[in-house]
Amino acid sequence: VLAVLAESAGDPDLAPFVGGVHLGRSLLILGADGVPHLGYLTEMEREEAAATGCALLTPEQLGVRSLLEATSDTAGLWAGVVERALALCGLGPQPIAMAGHPSAGAVATLAEQLVDAGWRPIDGGEAVRRWRRRKTTAELAAIRRAAAGAGAAISRVAELLASATARQGELWLEGELLRVRRLRSAVAVVLAEQGLEQPHGNILAAGPAAGVPHSQGDSEHVVRAGEALVVDIFPRGGLHADCARTLCVGEAPAALVAAHAEVRAAVQAAARQARVGVQGWDLQDAVCARFAAAGWATPIDAGGSARGYVHGLGHGVGYELHELPSFRREAGEDGRLSGGDVFTLEPGLYAPDEGWGVRLEDLCWLGPTGLETLTPLPYELDPRAYRSTQ
Amino acid sequence: VLAVLAESAGDPDLAPFVGGVHLGRSLLILGADGVPHLGYLTEMEREEAAATGCALLTPEQLGVRSLLEATSDTAGLWAGVVERALALCGLGPQPIAMAGHPSAGAVATLAEQLVDAGWRPIDGGEAVRRWRRRKTTAELAAIRRAAAGAGAAISRVAELLASATARQGELWLEGELLRVRRLRSAVAVVLAEQGLEQPHGNILAAGPAAGVPHSQGDSEHVVRAGEALVVDIFPRGGLHADCARTLCVGEAPAALVAAHAEVRAAVQAAARQARVGVQGWDLQDAVCARFAAAGWATPIDAGGSARGYVHGLGHGVGYELHELPSFRREAGEDGRLSGGDVFTLEPGLYAPDEGWGVRLEDLCWLGPTGLETLTPLPYELDPRAYRSTQ
Repeated sequence: VLAVLAESAGDPDLAPFVGGVHLGRSLLILGADGVPHLGYLTEMEREEAAATGCALLTPEQLGVRSLLEATSDTAGLWAGVVERALALCGLGPQPIAMAGHPSAGAVATLAEQLVDAGWRPIDGGEAVRRWRRRKTTAELAAIRRAAAGAGAAISRVAELLASATARQGELWLEGELLRVRRLRSAVAVVLAEQGLEQPHGNILAAGPAAGVPHSQGDSEHVVRAGEALVVDIFPRGGLHADCARTLCVGEAPAALVAAHAEVRAAVQAAARQARVGVQGWDLQDAVCARFAAAGWATPIDAGGSARGYVHGLGHGVGYELHELPSFRREAGEDGRLSGGDVFTLEPGLYAPDEGWGVRLEDLCWLGPTGLETLTPLPYELDPRAYRSTQ
Repeated sequence: VLAVLAESAGDPDLAPFVGGVHLGRSLLILGADGVPHLGYLTEMEREEAAATGCALLTPEQLGVRSLLEATSDTAGLWAGVVERALALCGLGPQPIAMAGHPSAGAVATLAEQLVDAGWRPIDGGEAVRRWRRRKTTAELAAIRRAAAGAGAAISRVAELLASATARQGELWLEGELLRVRRLRSAVAVVLAEQGLEQPHGNILAAGPAAGVPHSQGDSEHVVRAGEALVVDIFPRGGLHADCARTLCVGEAPAALVAAHAEVRAAVQAAARQARVGVQGWDLQDAVCARFAAAGWATPIDAGGSARGYVHGLGHGVGYELHELPSFRREAGEDGRLSGGDVFTLEPGLYAPDEGWGVRLEDLCWLGPTGLETLTPLPYELDPRAYRSTQ
């Protein structure tokens, strides 16, 4: 038995079963008969629930009203609803794989109750992650839309940079100093116009912040000519996309130019290597070998360094921003590239001691004819190169 | 012991402890000494973690590297990290209140391990919910910003409606039929410009959709003169706001005008009644009595009706869109209005059989001098009334 407990249909463990409907707290029970049963908790959601095509467990069947009268806490409600749902599905004590993201306290309470009743709660998250790895046509279409939005947002940033004027190194636009805040607002507007959300924010890291891959960037920072700006956009429209470019207005320092060329060659080489059956880790290994040969520290031969190549090569993308396939060494089957996978390739080089960094990230789909890049943008540092893509 | 397990610092159970930092998977342990210990799982987040002021449990201390080499699944990682964190905090088997929203499977796995080691996992979600109910100065400031954004978005919708022209009942704007899609895009742009997210979307429900309070509204619907448009906006900037108005271009039908006047009187009466010590349910009861006297069905005397007043009067608002205080009958102390509470008052009347509905929702703060409305907009149906508020 699989039991998915969700606070909304947006839970990445429930969404693959119910599509883009709007539901609040709800649960899905999948028994050996393979029929998904969807339980919803408020009568007002009956039409949305019916649109999923699942067998339905109504609030009345689940006894929601009497549970709400008997208990005021979420944990008690969940425990009562799940017990009733399992009974309605005709299921008796057995291993029960739990998925979804309800509150931890509710799961702890429920797990104790299930154990007392003879059930054996186990992890169901991995099974759902693997099940949703191969994208359906509708899921891929949603990712394509999000990827187009990410590309449009990056192009918009490049357009603003290309329109700016440098005075004593600082960029000005329309009579004002060009701060990262202005670029972040432009990204938000482009994505909003396309109906995309940014549940994890974005990265607009200029100058020193570009040298720290986890920095979201300082909105008050004034963009300067000759400094690197890492633009990493990961919007969601049901499913996520993820794409990054590094831009520089005016003459880039020689070290940045050289690193950018290395990273560009690395992302292109990785794309050529990415085929069904290849381990993600082998791609990471090859990128590390390439960077190490050019004298850079890498996670393989100098783990923990803040300078050089300091992170993984990529990650699967879907209902969650980080999904399968995995590019980790220990990933096994979860790391073997497979048809229908959507994943990023995102090598980077960072020199926090010199105040710059560069990352190039493509979102890719491993389709029946090979790898397709879903974010076809130029790779150039020069923002003027992006004009034709808008 | 309280243990909060979170996939990011945005988890509403972790956010109150760590503020607006950017963290991925992380955990917080709070023992009897009252010192919050924050565990983070990647070395790159050390600066963000340090900015929280919590005592830190580093990835090295938590043994993250060896756990990642030993296990490929999230549940195994969580179980290992929590076991290590409890030991580092010098804590031994006792009741452990679990909060946060990690995957249910991870909690099930962890709960079994904790029980085997002599711990007793219990629900910690309610304790955290109650702890975060009274807003801090910084939290209230974030809610005020979100509320101002919601107000600006509603005013922008009103402005577009006021600029439209009716031809044979359909509204036109700038040479095009005015569809809900255009209004939804305008809302998104206003909120994006203010750095606000819409994690739960929004409601722009025109015509028949306005009669169904849970409908998000059909984006392809062409807005018509004389029909109701419910605009309900609930953005987040760290914390949420929530505000709704109902608009109508041109001459509103008499039934809509009358219902709107009833709802307006109800929200104003509820605001006058809302004082420290009053039960939220008593406000709901009074609104029901008012509507029932005017001949409308209410949840109290005609539960399950789709026509009339069909939902609760309000809900607390904070890191989650729905928080304490509760307006439910059974809420007890969780339903007694208290200083520092932020909550909505949102009566409505719906006539799905006639294809219209009306809801007016104010976001309120119960401060030291009484109730303050954080969303001071006009109540009018006529969008032209909102012009001065932009």
